[in-house]
Amino acid sequence: MKIYFATTNAHKFSEVSALASRFGISLGMVEVELVEPQADSLREIVRAKVRQAYLAVKKPVIADDSGLFIPALRGFPGPYSSFVMKTVGNEGILRLLEGKDRGAEFVCAAGYFDGREEVVVEGKVAGKIADSVRGRGGFGFDPIFIPCGYEKTFAEDPETKQKLSHRAVAFTSLFQKLVSSRI
Amino acid sequence: MKIYFATTNAHKFSEVSALASRFGISLGMVEVELVEPQADSLREIVRAKVRQAYLAVKKPVIADDSGLFIPALRGFPGPYSSFVMKTVGNEGILRLLEGKDRGAEFVCAAGYFDGREEVVVEGKVAGKIADSVRGRGGFGFDPIFIPCGYEKTFAEDPETKQKLSHRAVAFTSLFQKLVSSRI
Repeated sequence: MKIYFATTNAHKFSEVSALASRFGISLGMVEVELVEPQADSLREIVRAKVRQAYLAVKKPVIADDSGLFIPALRGFPGPYSSFVMKTVGNEGILRLLEGKDRGAEFVCAAGYFDGREEVVVEGKVAGKIADSVRGRGGFGFDPIFIPCGYEKTFAEDPETKQKLSHRAVAFTSLFQKLVSSRI
Repeated sequence: MKIYFATTNAHKFSEVSALASRFGISLGMVEVELVEPQADSLREIVRAKVRQAYLAVKKPVIADDSGLFIPALRGFPGPYSSFVMKTVGNEGILRLLEGKDRGAEFVCAAGYFDGREEVVVEGKVAGKIADSVRGRGGFGFDPIFIPCGYEKTFAEDPETKQKLSHRAVAFTSLFQKLVSSRI
């Protein structure tokens, strides 16, 4: 089965491509201009992305979107994680959480569309927000995110990040569904 | 001249309609489903909105988008003001600004598209963020925004808000351009 991954991130492509091959899926990379709509749910954003990508390539496509969700901040920064990172950053998240519950989740939504069938799934890593910025590895919110059952942030321990990857969980679940439903 | 305003907000429609009539422009209201793209600039969002609205109605259309921009927070919450209001709220903005410069701007971008000509302008109200939430009038960030030259927040003094309205400034400038360029 050949599927096209709408992404401009070559690193992400090779990661997901390796996963896909375990399911007998061959991935092609397509770079298309996608409009990410403002929406409170990653699923909705991914749904829009795969539909636009399908219109552009007219072949089965996949796409994804990720965010950090903090229940004590009613889901902030959620789908707008990259804007929040660019503006208030990790220091801003720490300020906002002073005296609040520090539970948090990294979520990745991964979707498929072939003009007929649509599948959207989510992968999650549960954890908490650290008391300070820790570690120099990773990017984005990695220096303040500690996964459940661990002591170090994703930035301090990139191997654990890779092992728990919300993106890997999402795409594994997506590929399983595609293969088992024989779409 | 007849133009259609893509909005679902009847109050906003009547406010802008009153402004338009001073320029000899008659406004019709159209409720179309518009996808707001994720973009760091209001202009870009408005450009997307008027193009979508034009595709839906095939007549000259206008649309707008607003946000609060705080330079010390690199433009946060900006185009995502309504999501930020729903999640971290005014209390969150106050936390993020502790010890920082409190300058802020309410910005409205207003745009026009008729299938050929596109005009997008901005209206602004400069001010600062108050030290605490003050007043029960208005909505959104009104209780923490004090316009330049005043002492009260927009929520404490809705008349001043109406007088300085960034939306009125933007649409006045837009209508002036449309009338003078005889589009």
